[in-house]
Amino acid sequence: MNKNSSNTMALAPNTSNKKETVCIFGTGDFGRALGHKMIQSGYPVVYGSRSTQISNLIPKDAEVLGHAEAAQKAAIIIIAIQRQHYNFLTPLAEILRGKVLVDISNNLKLNQYPDSNAEHLAQLLPGSKVVKAFNTVSAWALQSGTLDASRQVFVCGDDVEAKQMVMNIVRALGLTPLDKGSLLAAQEIENYPLQLFPMWKFPIFLSLGLTAFFFLYCVALDIIYTYIYEKNNFSFFIAITIPNRVCPVMALILLALVYLPGVFAAIIQLYRGTKYRRFPDWLDKWMLCRKQLGLIALAFASLHVVFTLVTPLRAFASWRTGKGIISQALNNKTEPLDHTTAWLSDSYLALGILGFFLFVLLGITSLPSVSNNVNWREFRFVQSKLGYLALILCTAHTLVYGGKWFLSPSAYKWYLPNIYILSLIVPCAVLVVKFVLIFPCVDKPLTQIRQGWERNPKYSK
Amino acid sequence: MNKNSSNTMALAPNTSNKKETVCIFGTGDFGRALGHKMIQSGYPVVYGSRSTQISNLIPKDAEVLGHAEAAQKAAIIIIAIQRQHYNFLTPLAEILRGKVLVDISNNLKLNQYPDSNAEHLAQLLPGSKVVKAFNTVSAWALQSGTLDASRQVFVCGDDVEAKQMVMNIVRALGLTPLDKGSLLAAQEIENYPLQLFPMWKFPIFLSLGLTAFFFLYCVALDIIYTYIYEKNNFSFFIAITIPNRVCPVMALILLALVYLPGVFAAIIQLYRGTKYRRFPDWLDKWMLCRKQLGLIALAFASLHVVFTLVTPLRAFASWRTGKGIISQALNNKTEPLDHTTAWLSDSYLALGILGFFLFVLLGITSLPSVSNNVNWREFRFVQSKLGYLALILCTAHTLVYGGKWFLSPSAYKWYLPNIYILSLIVPCAVLVVKFVLIFPCVDKPLTQIRQGWERNPKYSK
Amino acid sequence: MNKNSSNTMALAPNTSNKKETVCIFGTGDFGRALGHKMIQSGYPVVYGSRSTQISNLIPKDAEVLGHAEAAQKAAIIIIAIQRQHYNFLTPLAEILRGKVLVDISNNLKLNQYPDSNAEHLAQLLPGSKVVKAFNTVSAWALQSGTLDASRQVFVCGDDVEAKQMVMNIVRALGLTPLDKGSLLAAQEIENYPLQLFPMWKFPIFLSLGLTAFFFLYCVALDIIYTYIYEKNNFSFFIAITIPNRVCPVMALILLALVYLPGVFAAIIQLYRGTKYRRFPDWLDKWMLCRKQLGLIALAFASLHVVFTLVTPLRAFASWRTGKGIISQALNNKTEPLDHTTAWLSDSYLALGILGFFLFVLLGITSLPSVSNNVNWREFRFVQSKLGYLALILCTAHTLVYGGKWFLSPSAYKWYLPNIYILSLIVPCAVLVVKFVLIFPCVDKPLTQIRQGWERNPKYSK
Repeated sequence: MNKNSSNTMALAPNTSNKKETVCIFGTGDFGRALGHKMIQSGYPVVYGSRSTQISNLIPKDAEVLGHAEAAQKAAIIIIAIQRQHYNFLTPLAEILRGKVLVDISNNLKLNQYPDSNAEHLAQLLPGSKVVKAFNTVSAWALQSGTLDASRQVFVCGDDVEAKQMVMNIVRALGLTPLDKGSLLAAQEIENYPLQLFPMWKFPIFLSLGLTAFFFLYCVALDIIYTYIYEKNNFSFFIAITIPNRVCPVMALILLALVYLPGVFAAIIQLYRGTKYRRFPDWLDKWMLCRKQLGLIALAFASLHVVFTLVTPLRAFASWRTGKGIISQALNNKTEPLDHTTAWLSDSYLALGILGFFLFVLLGITSLPSVSNNVNWREFRFVQSKLGYLALILCTAHTLVYGGKWFLSPSAYKWYLPNIYILSLIVPCAVLVVKFVLIFPCVDKPLTQIRQGWERNPKYSK
Repeated sequence: MNKNSSNTMALAPNTSNKKETVCIFGTGDFGRALGHKMIQSGYPVVYGSRSTQISNLIPKDAEVLGHAEAAQKAAIIIIAIQRQHYNFLTPLAEILRGKVLVDISNNLKLNQYPDSNAEHLAQLLPGSKVVKAFNTVSAWALQSGTLDASRQVFVCGDDVEAKQMVMNIVRALGLTPLDKGSLLAAQEIENYPLQLFPMWKFPIFLSLGLTAFFFLYCVALDIIYTYIYEKNNFSFFIAITIPNRVCPVMALILLALVYLPGVFAAIIQLYRGTKYRRFPDWLDKWMLCRKQLGLIALAFASLHVVFTLVTPLRAFASWRTGKGIISQALNNKTEPLDHTTAWLSDSYLALGILGFFLFVLLGITSLPSVSNNVNWREFRFVQSKLGYLALILCTAHTLVYGGKWFLSPSAYKWYLPNIYILSLIVPCAVLVVKFVLIFPCVDKPLTQIRQGWERNPKYSK
Repeated sequence: MNKNSSNTMALAPNTSNKKETVCIFGTGDFGRALGHKMIQSGYPVVYGSRSTQISNLIPKDAEVLGHAEAAQKAAIIIIAIQRQHYNFLTPLAEILRGKVLVDISNNLKLNQYPDSNAEHLAQLLPGSKVVKAFNTVSAWALQSGTLDASRQVFVCGDDVEAKQMVMNIVRALGLTPLDKGSLLAAQEIENYPLQLFPMWKFPIFLSLGLTAFFFLYCVALDIIYTYIYEKNNFSFFIAITIPNRVCPVMALILLALVYLPGVFAAIIQLYRGTKYRRFPDWLDKWMLCRKQLGLIALAFASLHVVFTLVTPLRAFASWRTGKGIISQALNNKTEPLDHTTAWLSDSYLALGILGFFLFVLLGITSLPSVSNNVNWREFRFVQSKLGYLALILCTAHTLVYGGKWFLSPSAYKWYLPNIYILSLIVPCAVLVVKFVLIFPCVDKPLTQIRQGWERNPKYSK
C-alpha cells in the first residue's frame, strides 16, 4: 500500500522542471544502476572515471569524463567507489570544496573500520559536505525497478541544505528518504544492511536445539518404546502427534524463559542493594532477546493450537472414536457422562484458550507500529501484567491436562519422565520466585532500589 | 528488529571523536541514570548541585560542582529538577544565556499546570534555548540498559540547532529521536507518559459490565434452571459452553455499537439540517472510541471462533455424539440425512466464517502502520462498506443459528428470553435504520448537508 | 492509541499563548470547516471573499473582508479555492509577497495537470512561500471532530520556516504533520487522496474471475453431475464444501503466481545476457503487484483453514461419521487401523499446517511497520527462501491430499479433470523451472548478470 504513490511518481516522473546535473564517481555495478535510474528520472548524469575506455557498460545518455572535469560539472557528486580507494580523492580536494559528496559505500562485515566510511570521507575532505545515503538499497532492486523491500533510504549528514538536496533526489527516484540526523548516524546506517536478524540468532538456535531434543525424546518414548514393548507401530505419530506434544512444551518453556531474566535481575539487585551496577553480560544479552524468545514461543503456541484443532480430521482420531463407540454399542450399554472428566476436559481447554488469547495480544503489542504508539507505562502493563497472566494460564492449562500423569507409572517409560513433567519445571520455578518477590517484605526494598536507593552507597566523598 | 542497529551502537559506542561536556542540574534518580548512560556513551558529565556533599550516589567519573560553575563548563544543560523548583534558575539567567536547556520533567497528572513545564522554563529564561526531551524514557529502563518499550525519544524546541544537538545525544545513547516540532508540542509530550490507555477505559468497562451480566444471565438460565427443574448438573458449562454463548453475543452487540453513533449522527444532522453544529458531548466521545469498541468486539469474536472449534475435543461433545450414535445402532436403524438441517448448519457456519473474515480484515486495517498507509477514501471504504457487510453477515449468522428458538417455548425459561434473542436487538435496529438512511429520499439531503448545505442558514448578515 | 494525546490536546487547546491570525481565501465547504476548527483551537480567522454578502455560512467568530484587506491581516493565507481560479491571485502578488500560502487543493483525477497545484501556485506568485498541506484531510472529518482515518497531514514546501509555521497549526488542530520535503513532493501528496487501492485492482479482479470460474466448475461437477447421474441432491455443498474446494485451489495458484514473474525475469535475463534492459511492461506491472497477490492468496488460505476446521461441526459430517460407525456396529465388527491411511491423513495435515504457518509469517513481514524494520537482506531471505519453502509445502500438501485422484476415473466426470489437478499445474511448473535455475551451470551466469556482467556489451565506444 505505501508504495502506490511513489510508484505513480516513478512511472510518471515530473520532467517539467529542469533537473541539476549529478556526477557519479565510479563505474561499478551500483554506480551504473544508480546512473540508469537517475537518467530515467530526468537527471543529466556525468560519470567521473580514471579511464574513459573501460566505461562501455555505462548508460548511453551519460557523459564520461575524468574525475576533475566531471566534478566541475555538478554540485552533487556520488562517490560510488570503495573506502580503500578514498585516498585518491585528496588531490581533488580543491575541486570538491563546497560540493555535496554522497557516500553510498557499504562494508563487508559489521564494524570493519573504527569509524564509518562517511565520517572517514568527511575527514579526508573537510571542505566538502558529506551526506550518507543509498547504501541500504540494492543495485539489483534499483535496476529492475521492482523494489520488493522497503523503499526507505536512510540519509544523514551535517549540512542541512546538502541533506535536503540529496533527499530531493531520493524522492525523485521514487524512494522514501528518512532523515537520521548528523553524520554521527553513518555508522548505524552502514551497519544496517549487513545484519541478518542479529537478535534472532540465539533464540532461534536455542529453539531448534530444544525442539530437536524433545522430538527425539518423544520418538524414543512414544514410538520406539511402544514398538518394542507393546508391538504397536505408531510411526505415523511423527507427523502430528509428536509435533503437537513438542510445540506446547517449547511454547511454555520459551515463555518462561522470557520472564526468567527479570526474576534473576530482581534477585541480583536485592543481593547487591543497588541498581547502579551493570548486570552480568549474559543477563544483559538474555534481556535484550526476550522479545524474540516471546515471539518464537508464540509461534510454537500457534502451531500447537492448529495441530490440536485438526485432531478430529485425522484418520487415527476417527478410527479411535469409532472403536470406542462400537465397543459400547456391542456391549449394549451407554456410558453415563463422567462429570469429573467433563470438568477437567473443559477446564484445560478454556485455560488454554484464554492463555493463548493473551499470548496473541502480547504478540500484537510487540509489532513495531503498535509498540511505538504505546508509552512506557502502557507497555509495562501489557508485557508484565498480561504476560505473567498468560504464563499463569498456560502453566495451569498444562497442569490440568498433564496432572494425572504425575503419579501414573506409565508416564515413566524407561524411568524417564514424560515431557509434560519436564516442561513444567521452568515455568513453575519462575512463578514461585515471582510470587515470593511480590511479598511486601521483598517488594518494598526492591522498589526502593529501583527508585535509586542504595543499601551501601560507595561513592561517598 | 528495530532495536538491533541501535543496540550495536550502544554496545560499541563511537568513542573516536571527542564528545562535548554535558551538564546535569539535579542529582535525583533520573539525573543519575542519565549521567551514567552518558558517561558510558563517552560524554564527560558535570553535575550541578546545591551541595556537593549529598552527591555520593553520583557516577564516579562525573564531576560535581555548584550550579553556576557546572553550567559554565557545558553548552548543554539537562534540567533534572522538578517544575516547582525552576524559580531558583532565574538568578542564573545570565550564565544560562544562549545555552541549550533540556527539560526532562514529567508531571504527576494530566494537564496539572496551564502551560507545559518546558514552556514555563522558556518563559523564565527567555535567553536560553529550551528543548523538551527524554521525559518518555524511564530511569529504570535507561539504567538497566534493557529498554523494553519504545526507544523513541520525543524532542521539541523552537531553536533548530539546539534541537539538533540534543537529537545527536539521544542517538549516541542508542535511542531514537523523534522531532515533534516547536515547543508548542511540549504539552502533548508531557502528557504522553501519564496515560494508561485513556481511550480504552470506557469500552473496557462497558464490555466487562455487559459480559458479567450476560454470564450470570446464562448461569441462571442454563445451569441453575436446569438443575432445579430438570435435576441435571451441568456446572461444567461454566468453562466453555457459557463463555461460548456470551462471546458471540458480546461481539455482535459491540460491533453494532460501533455503527450506532454514525446512525445517530446522521439523524441529528437530518433533524438540524446542518453539519455546522457540534454533536452532543456523549456522541462525540462515543464516536472517538469506536475503534476500541470494534477491536474488543473482534477479541470476543476470535474467542468465540476458538471456543467453537474446540467443541469436538470436549469430553461432553464426544459423549453426546457417542450417545446419539449408540441409540441409533441399538435401534438397528440409520437416520437419513436431513437436508434442511444440513443446509441450516452449513449456512450459519459459512455466514459466520465470512463475517469473521471481514472482521479480521477490519482489525488489520486499524493497525497504525496499515491505517497510516491508506488514505481517507480507502479507510472509509474499508471501515464503512466492509464494516457494514461484516455486521450484516454476523447478524445473519446469528439469525440462522438462533432463529429456531424465537418461537420455541424452551427459549423462555422463567419467562426470560434467550440471550440470542437479546443479542439481536441492537444490530437489527442499526441495520434497519441504516437501510432507511440509504433510501434516496433520505440519502440525498443528508449528502447535501455533509457537503456544507444548510436548511436554515443562521449567520446571515 | 496514537490518537490519545492529540485528542487531549484538541479538547483542551493551549489557549494561554495568543495565536497569530490566519487568513482563509475562499468560503467553500473546506474553507468553512477549516475555519471552524481553527477558531475552536484559538486562532483568530479572517476570510477573504469576493463578496461579503454570500458569506452567511461562515463561522460566527470569523471576520469577512475583501481578499486584499484580509491578506494584510495575516502572515499565513490558506488558499481554499480551486486551481482554475488561481489566476485571480496574480493581481494580489504584491500584497502576498513574503506571506505563507497554504495550498490545500485536490484534483478530481490522477495527474490531471502536468504540474502539481502547489507548484503552479508557486510559479504564479514567486514572491510568496507556498506550502502544501491539509489536502489529505476530509472536510467532513474535520468538521465532525471525529477523524476516523489517519490524522496525518502531509506537508511540503521549499521554505523551512514557512513549513514550520504550518506544521505548528496542524499540531494545534490536533493533527499530526508529516514533513515530505520540498515542493517537489506536492504532486505525490496531491495524488494520494485520489487513489482507491490502485495496486489492488488487478489482483482483486483476477481473483474474483478465477474464483467465479472454479466455483461454477465445482457446482457443475459436484452438484449438477451428482444430481443427474447419481440422483443425489447435494445442493447444500454450495455453502461450505465447494468454497472449501475453491479456496485452497485459489490460494495455491495465486501463491505460485507470486513467484512466476521472478522465474520469467530470470529466463529473460539469461536469454538477453544483461540486466541493463527494462523488462516488458506486463512483467514490470506483474512484479509490482506480487505483494497484493500474495496477501490475497493468504486470505484464501486462511478461509480454507477455517472452512476445514469447522468440518466436524457440520450436520453432514456428523451424519456421515455416524453412518460409518453404525454400519460397522451392525456388522458386529471393528475395522483395524489402516496405517497407510493414517500416514497419508497425518502427512497432508502436517504439510498444510507448516505451509500455512510459513505463509502467515510471510504475511506478517509484509506489514508496513515490520517490513520497514528489516533490511534488504532480511526481506529477501524471508520473501524468497521462506516463500519458496511455503510454496513447496503447500504443493506437497495438495499432492498428498489429491494424489489418489490422478488415476481414479471418478476424478474425470464429463471428461473434465478435478480442480485439484488443475490447481497443481502452475505451482509445479514454477517449482520445476526454479529447480532448474538453481543448478550451478544456470545459477552462475545468472548471478554474474545480476552483478552487472553483460554477455554482449553494447555501449562500447
